[in-house]
Amino acid sequence: MSDVTKSATDKESLPFSEQHYFSSYDHFGIHEEMLKDEVRTLSYRNAILKNKDLFRDKVVLDVGCGTGILSMFAAQAGAKHVIAVDMSNIIEMAQKIVDLNGFSDKITLVRGKLEDVVLPYKEVDIIISEWMGYFLLYESMLDTVLWARDHYLKKGGLIFPDRATMHIAGIEDGEYRSSKLDYWENVYGFDYSPFIEIAKAEPLVDTVENSAVVTTSGTLVEIDINTVKLEDLAFFNKFTLKAIRDDTIHGLVAWFDIWFPGTDAKHEVYFSTGPHAKYTHWKQTVFYLDDILDIKRGESLEISLANRPNAVNPRELDIEIKWDFKADGDNYRAHQGTHNYFLR
Amino acid sequence: MSDVTKSATDKESLPFSEQHYFSSYDHFGIHEEMLKDEVRTLSYRNAILKNKDLFRDKVVLDVGCGTGILSMFAAQAGAKHVIAVDMSNIIEMAQKIVDLNGFSDKITLVRGKLEDVVLPYKEVDIIISEWMGYFLLYESMLDTVLWARDHYLKKGGLIFPDRATMHIAGIEDGEYRSSKLDYWENVYGFDYSPFIEIAKAEPLVDTVENSAVVTTSGTLVEIDINTVKLEDLAFFNKFTLKAIRDDTIHGLVAWFDIWFPGTDAKHEVYFSTGPHAKYTHWKQTVFYLDDILDIKRGESLEISLANRPNAVNPRELDIEIKWDFKADGDNYRAHQGTHNYFLR
Repeated sequence: MSDVTKSATDKESLPFSEQHYFSSYDHFGIHEEMLKDEVRTLSYRNAILKNKDLFRDKVVLDVGCGTGILSMFAAQAGAKHVIAVDMSNIIEMAQKIVDLNGFSDKITLVRGKLEDVVLPYKEVDIIISEWMGYFLLYESMLDTVLWARDHYLKKGGLIFPDRATMHIAGIEDGEYRSSKLDYWENVYGFDYSPFIEIAKAEPLVDTVENSAVVTTSGTLVEIDINTVKLEDLAFFNKFTLKAIRDDTIHGLVAWFDIWFPGTDAKHEVYFSTGPHAKYTHWKQTVFYLDDILDIKRGESLEISLANRPNAVNPRELDIEIKWDFKADGDNYRAHQGTHNYFLR
Repeated sequence: MSDVTKSATDKESLPFSEQHYFSSYDHFGIHEEMLKDEVRTLSYRNAILKNKDLFRDKVVLDVGCGTGILSMFAAQAGAKHVIAVDMSNIIEMAQKIVDLNGFSDKITLVRGKLEDVVLPYKEVDIIISEWMGYFLLYESMLDTVLWARDHYLKKGGLIFPDRATMHIAGIEDGEYRSSKLDYWENVYGFDYSPFIEIAKAEPLVDTVENSAVVTTSGTLVEIDINTVKLEDLAFFNKFTLKAIRDDTIHGLVAWFDIWFPGTDAKHEVYFSTGPHAKYTHWKQTVFYLDDILDIKRGESLEISLANRPNAVNPRELDIEIKWDFKADGDNYRAHQGTHNYFLR
């Protein structure tokens, strides 16, 4: 490729104005998407600004601050000092925004890995962080938040948010399943069926209409961020999903809910990323089953789900789902199976 | 992060079936998107299958073969032997597909960088490749196709496709421009205006309705892939866009068209990725101007555009656009400016 570079930089006839060169920022588009996700950003704003009593004169640590929006909310809420840490060069932009909005004396931005940088405080009163990934834990920063908690949070200090739950339910999703799986049976006349196994192993991050949900939901895991240990993020759970109508189950949809602490129950902000809730950029996560299950209202589907960080790359997830469906009565049907998924 | 790995792999209670572990494939979703882009894939199929006379008993080199679809089209068209090269591990899947569809003796898959691997032929009759990126050249593989041409293509051999053109026109796009640029003036009450410069410098890859096009189009560049040199991909061109109605110009839309060779003009397949054509996964590329120009039907906008590979990463592009608009008569207006963009 060096030829390209050479030819371009040597070509003096190209009328480029070097002084107008901007550097690019990591994941600029991602920051735009996250800011524009009002469920996300307004939940953080409400959680912080509705609890000014908790923030007044406090030292706050913002883990993975991005463009600095949460730090500015904390400063608005009366924090004495906010320390905001991020590894990405987006923090250069955060510094401009903080200065422009008059928070230079309230917010100190530190670029680096939290585990490596030196902070101006040995202890902080509050940790704020938007660490959640797809399926809550995929490529999430929760490990860094827990490290911050264990190394910097004052005894009795607060974490925003401090509770996360994950949920799962059965869905009817025949048409889309077909476009994602059956598609490979005939690709321009060729048999691409080896791709079906790969497609089945990849959970889909996509939106699911609430009307597609055909069972009750089960809780995969409840995470108390004040106390959870890193090893608890590899979890295993069993639960029963009950059909809410006669329908067909093609797969499972998973989502997460987030809670913030508050001065009292009325001030505890909460949001959900479920199919029943408003769109968020996290969407939902869909796991197709090997079986297609015909289920009648009131019948039960037993599910077990195991989740663990991948052994090679712990920011990726390995997920195993087992299902067991037996319907007695006139029309005996039984299905059971196990399927492995990965979020890469 | 090693704690996560350790806890998960040590945790024997997690019921994982190791034998069900699949490896992940690079960019699996991208291959799905490309295959499902029927304008793209059917154009290649038509170009190859409508020209069986050109392929019969020929040795074909597929540069960046992905899942092997173009190689199988070439084999169907009667090629003696297809050599298909790709750096990605997707080639393992291509091998399965080729075997499953009975092309094992016609298609030889080689994993590696074309410049490094040893091929079973010193010369090939035909090169096929789908190398095009956004804005034609962003992260494109054209440099590898040209290397293949210069090192392997027989004198008089054919390249599919062998011609590409790039085009640009003025668009009315006030609402979207506002959501991408003006948005930063007030982000949850904060002044994020430093992001406007960054947003302006990033061309948008997105679909543009043909009804948004308010000028004639100009040709940025015509590339004859049989003869083009790598250094020609840094190009500079001037042209005049004429307003086709009274309207406002917020930016420019760029797209590319692709031509394949054929036994005669009737068999030369062509497709466009312009706003007037059917959707493709390349969409179009939008450049917002610093100015918003009120223009009357028949008035002219002079544009010059320079494009070159970035000096640090030649798969990225630096683009400079100058505009010059003067309208005489009752309502004299003049605007001119220069803006630098980068595709990162």
